[in-house]
Formats: sequence, structure tokens, C-alpha cells
Amino acid sequence: MTNPREKTARLMAATRIAVVGASSDPTKLTGRPIAYMLQRGFKGEIIPINPSRAEIQGLRAYPSLAAVDRPVDLALIGTAAAQVEPIIAEGISAGIKSFVVLSSGFSEHDAEGARLQTRLTELARCHDVAIVGPNCLGVINAETGLIASFTTAMEENALTSGGFGFASQSGALGAYWLDLVLQAGLGVSRWISTGNECDVDLAASIGMLVDDPLTKVIGAYVEDVKDGPAFRAALRDAAHANKPVFVIKAGRSQAGAAAAASHTGAMAGEDRVYQACFDQYGAVRVASVTEMIDAAKLVLHDAVPAAGKIGVLSVSGGAGVMLADAIESAGLGFPAFTAQTAEALSKTLPGYSKPHNPVDLTANVLANTEMFRKTLSVVSATPELDACILFIGLMHSISDVLTESILAARAASGRPFIVVWIGARPDIVAKLDAARIPVYPDIPQAIAALAHASRARAQRSRAALAGDAPERARAAGRSRTVTEWQSKARLREIGGVALPAGAMVSAGHEVAAAIAALKGPFVAKLQSPAMPHKSEHGGVVLGLADASAVTEAVRTLQQRGREAQVECDGVLIEQMVGFDIELIVGFRRDPVFGPMLMVGRGGIEVELDPDIAIALLPLSAEEIEALLRSLRSARLFDGFRGRQPVELGAIAQALAKIGAGFLADPGLEEIEINPRVARGSNVVALDALMKVANP
Amino acid sequence: MTNPREKTARLMAATRIAVVGASSDPTKLTGRPIAYMLQRGFKGEIIPINPSRAEIQGLRAYPSLAAVDRPVDLALIGTAAAQVEPIIAEGISAGIKSFVVLSSGFSEHDAEGARLQTRLTELARCHDVAIVGPNCLGVINAETGLIASFTTAMEENALTSGGFGFASQSGALGAYWLDLVLQAGLGVSRWISTGNECDVDLAASIGMLVDDPLTKVIGAYVEDVKDGPAFRAALRDAAHANKPVFVIKAGRSQAGAAAAASHTGAMAGEDRVYQACFDQYGAVRVASVTEMIDAAKLVLHDAVPAAGKIGVLSVSGGAGVMLADAIESAGLGFPAFTAQTAEALSKTLPGYSKPHNPVDLTANVLANTEMFRKTLSVVSATPELDACILFIGLMHSISDVLTESILAARAASGRPFIVVWIGARPDIVAKLDAARIPVYPDIPQAIAALAHASRARAQRSRAALAGDAPERARAAGRSRTVTEWQSKARLREIGGVALPAGAMVSAGHEVAAAIAALKGPFVAKLQSPAMPHKSEHGGVVLGLADASAVTEAVRTLQQRGREAQVECDGVLIEQMVGFDIELIVGFRRDPVFGPMLMVGRGGIEVELDPDIAIALLPLSAEEIEALLRSLRSARLFDGFRGRQPVELGAIAQALAKIGAGFLADPGLEEIEINPRVARGSNVVALDALMKVANP
Repeated sequence: MTNPREKTARLMAATRIAVVGASSDPTKLTGRPIAYMLQRGFKGEIIPINPSRAEIQGLRAYPSLAAVDRPVDLALIGTAAAQVEPIIAEGISAGIKSFVVLSSGFSEHDAEGARLQTRLTELARCHDVAIVGPNCLGVINAETGLIASFTTAMEENALTSGGFGFASQSGALGAYWLDLVLQAGLGVSRWISTGNECDVDLAASIGMLVDDPLTKVIGAYVEDVKDGPAFRAALRDAAHANKPVFVIKAGRSQAGAAAAASHTGAMAGEDRVYQACFDQYGAVRVASVTEMIDAAKLVLHDAVPAAGKIGVLSVSGGAGVMLADAIESAGLGFPAFTAQTAEALSKTLPGYSKPHNPVDLTANVLANTEMFRKTLSVVSATPELDACILFIGLMHSISDVLTESILAARAASGRPFIVVWIGARPDIVAKLDAARIPVYPDIPQAIAALAHASRARAQRSRAALAGDAPERARAAGRSRTVTEWQSKARLREIGGVALPAGAMVSAGHEVAAAIAALKGPFVAKLQSPAMPHKSEHGGVVLGLADASAVTEAVRTLQQRGREAQVECDGVLIEQMVGFDIELIVGFRRDPVFGPMLMVGRGGIEVELDPDIAIALLPLSAEEIEALLRSLRSARLFDGFRGRQPVELGAIAQALAKIGAGFLADPGLEEIEINPRVARGSNVVALDALMKVANP
Repeated sequence: MTNPREKTARLMAATRIAVVGASSDPTKLTGRPIAYMLQRGFKGEIIPINPSRAEIQGLRAYPSLAAVDRPVDLALIGTAAAQVEPIIAEGISAGIKSFVVLSSGFSEHDAEGARLQTRLTELARCHDVAIVGPNCLGVINAETGLIASFTTAMEENALTSGGFGFASQSGALGAYWLDLVLQAGLGVSRWISTGNECDVDLAASIGMLVDDPLTKVIGAYVEDVKDGPAFRAALRDAAHANKPVFVIKAGRSQAGAAAAASHTGAMAGEDRVYQACFDQYGAVRVASVTEMIDAAKLVLHDAVPAAGKIGVLSVSGGAGVMLADAIESAGLGFPAFTAQTAEALSKTLPGYSKPHNPVDLTANVLANTEMFRKTLSVVSATPELDACILFIGLMHSISDVLTESILAARAASGRPFIVVWIGARPDIVAKLDAARIPVYPDIPQAIAALAHASRARAQRSRAALAGDAPERARAAGRSRTVTEWQSKARLREIGGVALPAGAMVSAGHEVAAAIAALKGPFVAKLQSPAMPHKSEHGGVVLGLADASAVTEAVRTLQQRGREAQVECDGVLIEQMVGFDIELIVGFRRDPVFGPMLMVGRGGIEVELDPDIAIALLPLSAEEIEALLRSLRSARLFDGFRGRQPVELGAIAQALAKIGAGFLADPGLEEIEINPRVARGSNVVALDALMKVANP
């Protein structure tokens, strides 16, 4: 079997393309690809297939794929759904390795369509061919001029070849991307709309872009990932290849709806797990195609600051302060100038402008463009910066002089220049852009782009080291919740955390013997698999001083169990535990991405004002420590306001051990514990909740 | 004395304008206003003043203001700084009531300039005239064509009259606004750049726009408000007049830097107090001029949904979900359809598209524009919605048909339509815009605009009722911190909160008698004005069971005071207090806006993960209750997770009483307390810190 991304790359490289059901009408679905390719000079051969025409759009037509007398690389199919399978079968017999199915009427339509689609999947698997679609907009290779697509985005745009590749799970979003990227003057490498993904999926498409030497930046529109492990691997490979991945992911508001037995289930909703995957594997989420283009432009122009140390020069003091605000709230570096830089600047700037970052060039620029040139040259050469943002507004009468100074400073310093120019002349924008100086029309766009591109760069090294998915993800099967006592027994086997000393009793008269070896005060907890949230149902009694109080509590709890008509295993008596830090920790098998870990601040904050972090397994103890450090309340670990500090490394080690136990036992669907940490490193799992797969 | 905003309105209405130092060169500072007005047909008279020319740009020139033989409404001055004062004096003698000073070289320059500027302020006050500037870009009245400005934004743009007014504390930002608004096709009412504000300030300018019948939406660029009470009043009047105010405020990152003795001082930094003022008085903050224009367009086109109940129709399923995500995360309403609407939609939509919000029109639109028309007409008439967002991408070949359907549905329903059209044809955008249907190029811009405009609408009724500033703001004078014991004595006089029973002792042997009437456990706290953060310096001992433990603690604390070499008033012994809720409350006199209140979640969260809210006084108990409700952790008040609920009304009453005491005593600079609330309504101020003005 050929690797899916290699199959996809082979499909993209096709030079002999057959268009099945080819139309003479250049506005029809199967006429457009031919017209588009003819207009733009496809560097290959187009072979129309049509049994009733000898010629299509000036090209010789063949009655069937079988009738073509020379090898064909790719068959593009736009016929009725029912005809697709036999056409692909015929193509396979004729030795064709790649297919793009534009036709709809498959799984998006009805059960019969879904059945037809399964047959396409089987054909692809059995014969080791690549099938893109069905129900997709097709593929484009801007280098060769291959346009195996009927997208209307090709109606009016020239197809410029360049470094930006895109894979889309929505045809429409793919078309918008293509239109906006080409309108923005950026070049495209490869473009693929994956449709129903009967064979080639998003992960394979991203992998193809990673392997593609022309692609420098990868964009993706993600609706639902079908193969989580492959998706993770593709993103990691992109990090290795130093190719930033910008993603748009819809569906945020539908996340984590339904009531869940565990906090982990409720809080690690679908969208948060996607976000965790993006963060861990280095993909950066953007809100729109426009934001994606803004960020990609920085990468394509080699204008991403190496360490985010940004200097600002502005012709308006107010705009300079707005830029400084935006840079700081985006978390980008905004260093002060050294005394040397300040000294040099005080010689170029007007006397009333202070030589600090942001530099206020003042409206004096209008009268003194030489001052602009000199200041730019000083700032662009300072060692404390690695990029300059220049703010200009209007100034049409001196646009050309300013532009020459910018080009000269960029060339001399070799350092990224980013220009925000309100109301810029279009010819000036084009001139700067041609010199790889990105120009933005206002401050927020520029800073969002810088934040996204810098984030992609910063995440790269971590993402390149992220682990392989430990197992294939699987649909959630039937599972059942087990009691705290049973969960703790299993946790004891796994190890990692301590457990409060305790004993199970099934009647009041057993209490005295059961707690003989324990030390008060005690807590009594009713044990029923039907009551996972026992404290909300009065199933927990705290602060019991002695045996008689415990005995009384056991009777009360058993009475409550009877009243609630739930089956009970007994009552768990435990010593109460002092603590410095309270956490919540959950392990879960996500249906898309597989095993994951959630950590968070425990206690009432879990529901009141959640402070949690999520990552996919496997995770080293160091990675778990970093995850804990990423909590908003992480300062608590350091002994905040007179509390005892805790040994974060020891906590991380304990969680890593439970994680290993969770990975080793596929029958465990979920583990949730509420560990308390006292005296530095003593991690005690106060409560525990497990879900196990039903056989 | 004429009211400042009336003076400003009179200035704006000028029809006879003298240009002092008028230049024949239309590119010079004092030549441009004349050239601009001549080009655009100012509906008034331009009177150049120049002692050495008989004619300027084709107009008869006069040697001086005194020499003009007829009344002049406004003198525009662009001479050297030193000449400005005598020119204004001459103008006042000649009966001129309004002056615009473009000249720089005043307080922005040096001490001599500041002195000159003070003289202009005195002239304005003594003679009841209006002076805009100095060091400003001037004013524009688009209705009359008055352009008393040299802004380069007037070089190439036509001056379209309309409903959008702007007041700016930065000339440059004012110019960008003017350029972008006119380029966006929106009309301008009045425009004012306030410069150094020797007389006419931002508050007067906003007030002028509130009073102006042409202005429907107000924009402002705020750098630093000089008259907080007048600014508050102007914003409130805008709310009364139903005119949304959108503001840009720079300086976020410089906020609240320096170390402060109180949490209130540290957390109510400059930017947060500005934000509190905007929130309370109904101004909506935007990040850029572009965002401001996007929001204003909705207001000017009467397209702000009355109750934010938004329906979405999209030609792409993915874009529909992205819109739904964005609407929900912006907090806008996104209702489900009624069964009746769903029924009607199921008749118009293709069979495979579900009749829910967002409506997926599918790419079927291309083949079936009639389906588009019918669906639009159903959705635009449903009672559960008050606005429709329509998403379209490309579709150039059917743009005209779609546009006709949109125009018809808008006209028939009278309901706001907002269109997001990726890659729209410019002629289509213009056509929709002319029918007051705002078009945005992508999703984020549209939703940000809706969020800003809806917020302005929602805040209006509260803002209209917001109080007058209770006193003029004043620069922070010298003040001193007083001890907890003294603070509590003052609090006891003010009333509102209970205080823990306690007594002061100055030596160990006084303890037994002092605590005879108290009930343990006790806390002992060293009292020194030099040690406001006493717990961080070991100045507090908790959990003392009896007299001997307290006596020991008093000795220890006094020893610590000696070691720290601070003067001590003694040791305060108090009963410890049980509680359900812990808060932090601060009253402070802000140097810009005057007395304000900060409330927040108490305990370690104050420093760990602050959850605070700020508002300006005066505040009713109801307003304070709403402020408490606005905390992220407000659910705590309702008895969260088994805790006792508290009576929020009673807490608000208590704080209102302290607030009244704070207002009544101008010598109080700051009060900070840490109230604990137990058993519903018993509010006890655990700790207290006051700063009083030094005489």
C-alpha cells in the first residue's frame, strides 16, 4: 500500500488528465476544468472522455477511459453518482492511479449514497489508488496549471504559482480562500478540497503539502478530523519541515454540550480537544481566511521576527501608542532601547520627540524626509530588535520618498520590516510587497498577523517533539461508571498517587473494627455506581470525630441510598486529609484524537471559574509539568501568599504514572481524580471516578 | 458665560471665516484651508487676512482682522506662536466669537509655549469666546463646506455630508478617520481636532455633536480626558439623545503601573477607570478606525437588531457554522426557529438541508435562485428574529439576481439585513449600500460591528440614568495611610458595615482586661501607619485561643515592630469571624473621573486571579448590586455548591452607605475593606485601610 500522502502527491503531479463526461460548454461542471486549464496553459495533456463527441473544446475526445491509447495519470469524474464506481473500476483496469470525483449524491445525500461511497473506499484500498472526493471541488496544482476543479474562483483570477498551500474540508471555504489569496497577490502551490473523504482525507492532504517542496505555508479548513492519529502526525511533520500551519475550525459553539458524568467529559468538549491538538502539534487557529492570509504573508515574505523583539516607528504619536498597546496585549516583545540606540536617535529625531520605543517621528516627516531616512536606518540596525513596524498614514505627496527610504533600510539591514499604512496608495503597496515588505491597512490586522505567525514559530520546537498517537481513536462504546471504592482499588494497582487510609463497611456494627487502625476525623461516603455525584445527593458526611459518629453516619447514608432507590455496595470510611493544593485530573479516550489528559485547579473553581488545561497522550512528566504551569493559577504551586509550595515535578511524575496505567489498559474509558497535595510532594487522590468499557 | 458646547456649536456654524496669515500657495498650511473650501464650494465667505497682499487665491485680502468692514464669525490662525495672542485680542475687539489656532509651539513644545497657552485660556474665559487648539488640525463642517483645517485627508476626497461626527485628541488620527470614512462612502457631519485644548476640549466637542441635529453617530479618539465630570455628562447626554458613541482610547499598556499601597490603587489603573467610565456612560470602545466605521455603518443604515435576535442564511454550510460560532461568542442572540418557521422553510429548502438556524442554502443556489428568494422571504418575516445575516461568497454570475432578492426582502420586511459577501463585486456592494444594507468582506468584521453596535444600544438606558459627577476631579495631593484601628473608628462613624469586636492594647499586661468581654479564638494585629501590608511582614497572628496566647502574641508583635523600626500605635485584638463570602471593596478618588468604587472577589483571588468590577460614584444600592452581579464569580452569592447564599441587596446597601460617607468627606482619599459576609446579610469589615489627605 502506498502511503496516503504519497498517493495524494502523485495525484497532484498528474500531467495527463482525463475528464470523464467532458462537456463542450465551458460553463458546465465538466466543461469548466477544461476551459480553465486551456485558458491558463496547463503544462500537460487534457483528454476529454465523451462517447458522443469526437472533439471537446478543440481537443480530441475519446469514448471511454479504456479507449485512450496512452497512459493517463488522473481521471476527473463529474458524472451522476451511480456511474462513478464503474468508471473508476474501468480506470483502474486501464492502469490509472488517481481519481478526483466532483459528483455529489453520496454520503452527504442519503443511505444509498453512503453505500456507493463505501464501495469507492473499497476500490481505493483494494487497488492502491487515490480517490479525492466525492462531493468535492477538486484539486489545483498552480505549478503545472492543473485545475481539476470547477470552482468559480477560477473564473476571473489568474493562477499565480507560489508558496501557499491549502487543504479544505469545505468546498465553498476552499473557493473563498483561492479567490482571496489570488486577489491578495500571494501565490498558490497546491489546493485540495477533500469533500466526503472516501479515501484521501485532510491528514493525507496536509501531509502532501508538508512533503511538497513548493509549499512554504500550509492553510487548512477543518470541519471534522476522521483520523486523529494521522492528523497529529501530519501537523508534527509540518513542524519538523518548518512549515507553519494555520487552521480555521468551525463548530466552537456546539462544543461539549450534553451532560456528562465526569467534569473531564463536560469540560473537555469537542472544540477544546481540537484546540489542545492544535496547540500541542503547532497549528495556529485563525478566525477567517483574511486573518490566515495576513499571517501567511509574513511567513512568505520572511518577515516573522526571530524572537519577537519589535521596534515601532510612527508618524503619529497616538498611533505609536496604539501599536505599543496592541503589541503588548498580543504578548509580543517590545524592548526598551539601549542607551546607545537612544543616543543615536536623539541625533536624528526632532528635539521634542523622545528617543524611546515607540519612536514618534512626528508630522515633521512631511517637512523633513531626510530625518525619516536617518531614523529608519538607526532603528533597523539596533541589536536589541529583530523587526520593525512602521506606521504611516496618508502622506500621499511624499509616499515615493518614504518608500525609497523603507526599501533602502530593509535592504541594508536584512531585517523584517512590516508597514501599517492607513490610506496607502495602491502602487506603493505593490512596490513594497514586491520587495517582500508586507503592508497592512490598519493596526489590528498587522498585530494579529504578527501574533499568529510568531505563535507558529514559537510552537514549532515543542510540536516537532510531540508524541505519536498511542492508539487509534475509536468511537465511544458502551461504558459504565464504577464506584469510588472500586476505582481506588484499580488506582492502587496503577500506582502514582497515594490514597487516604480507609475501609468499606456494609453495616453500622462493622464500623468500630473497620476504623480501629485509622485516625480521625473521618469522612463517610455512600458507594453506588448509580450515584457518581454523591456529594450533591447527600451521599457524603464530613468531619466525623469518632466511631459512634461514623456509625450514625453509616446508618444515615444507607437510609439515603434506600430512599434514592439505588443499589449500594456499602459505605466507604476514610481518614480526612490535610492539603495545600487541590487539583482536578482527568484521563479520557477522545473519540477523535484518542487518550488525553485534563488538569485543572480543584475545589469550587472547577465549576465556578474553570482553570483547566488539556493535552493529548503520550505525555512525559516534563510535558505534564508544563501543562500544570500553563494554568492561570499556576503561581499557587510556588507557595502563594504564605501557603506551602509544592513539588510540581513530583506531581507530574505521579500523573505520568497514572497516564501510563491508563494507556496500558484499553478497558479504562475514563479516570477522574481530585488530588490534594500536601507537604510538597505527597499527592493523595481524595475522590476517584472511573468509567470502564462494557464487555 | 456661554456653555462650552454651545460655544463650540457656534464656532462650527460659522459662515464668515477670516484666515489670518492667508497664503496664496494652496499647498501651504494657511493656503490649504482656502483652497479646500474654494474647491468644495463653502456656503459662506472666506476672508483672507494678509497685510502684504490685496488678493489671495482670487479673494480680496484685508491687512488685519480690525480692517475687515463686516462681521466675522470665525478667525482661523496659523501664524507663529508668539503672534497668536495679539491676533486673538484684536479679533475679540473686532467682535469675533470663535477662533481656531492651528499653530504649534505651545504647551507641547516648552515652558514658554505653555505660558503662551495659559494666556489663550484666559482670553477665552474673560471674553466668553471659543478657541479650538492650539496645535490642532482644526474643524470641518461638511454641511456648510467649512474646512478650517489643513489636513491632507482633504487633498483627494470629496467632502460628503452625512450623519457621522468625530472629535479627536490626535490630529493624525483625525485625518485617518476622515480619509477612511469618506473612502468608505459614509457621510460626515462635523469633525474637530482639539489639539492642546486651551479652551474647547473633548467633552465640549462631544457635547456639540450630541446637540447637533445632523449627527447620528459620534466617534472619538481619546488620549487624556481633562475634565472628567464634563466628559461623563457629555456621554450621558449622548445616551439620552440616542446617539451611540464609539471611542478609541490608546495607552492601555501604560495603565496602573507604579506600586500602590492598596489593592484598589494597584488594580484600578488608569485604563481600567477609563473603561469603567465608558461602560457606565454607554461609550463603546473599538480597536481601530476601521472597526469604528464598521460599527457606525450599522447605525447609519438603521441595521442594528433591536434585541439581537439574529437569523443566519448561508450559501455555505461551513460559513454558516462559523457565523453561528462568532455570534455566540460575541454574546448576541441566536434563537432557534419556531416549528412554524421550520415548516415554512422545509418547503423552500432543498430536501437535504435542515430547516434550522443557521440556514444552509447550499450551493444549490447557483442552480436555483428562486429557492434563494423564497427562503429569504420566509426568514425575513419570522417573528422570532429581528435581523438577518446573509452569507454569500463569489457567485459573480448570479450576483444581480441575488441582489434583487435581497433588496426585495429588505423592503418587504423592513427588518435589518446584514450581508457578508466574500469577493463581492464592487458595483453590488454599492447597490446594497445605497439601499442601507451594510456589506462586510468577511465574517469577523461583520460580527465585531454587530457586537459593538448592539452593545451601544444595550448600554443606552443604563447610561441615560447614570449620575452626575459628585465633585470635580482633582490631582492627587499628599496623603497618608492611617492604621486599621483608626480606619475602623472612622468606618464605625460612617456605618454600613459591622466590625469585629476588638480592643487596642499597648502592652501584654493589658490583654486580660481588654478581652474580658470578647469571645475566642482571637487575632492580634500590629498597628502601624508605616506597615499597611502587615500580614506580609509578620504583623498578624491568627487563631489565638485564650488570654495567655494573646499576651504572648502581643509581645511577639511588638518585638517585630521594634525590629522593623516602625512607629507602632499598639496591637489590635479582635474576635475571629466566620464567613460564607469574602470580598474586597475599595473607594478612591480618581484624578480624572473623581470618586469611584471597586468591588471584587476577596481572599487569595485578589492577587492570584483578580475578579473585580469598577464604577464611578454616585451609585445607588441597585447599581452596586448590579456591579457585584457582574463579577465572574457572582454565582457564589447564590449559595454555590452547598455554601450559604447571601443577601446581595443587604451587601449593596452597606456599600452604598459607606459610599455616601466617602462622598461626604473630601478629606478621605481612599477606603479599602475586606468584608466577609455570613448568614445572609451580616457584613463584617475584617480589615480596613484608609488614606486621608494631608492638610
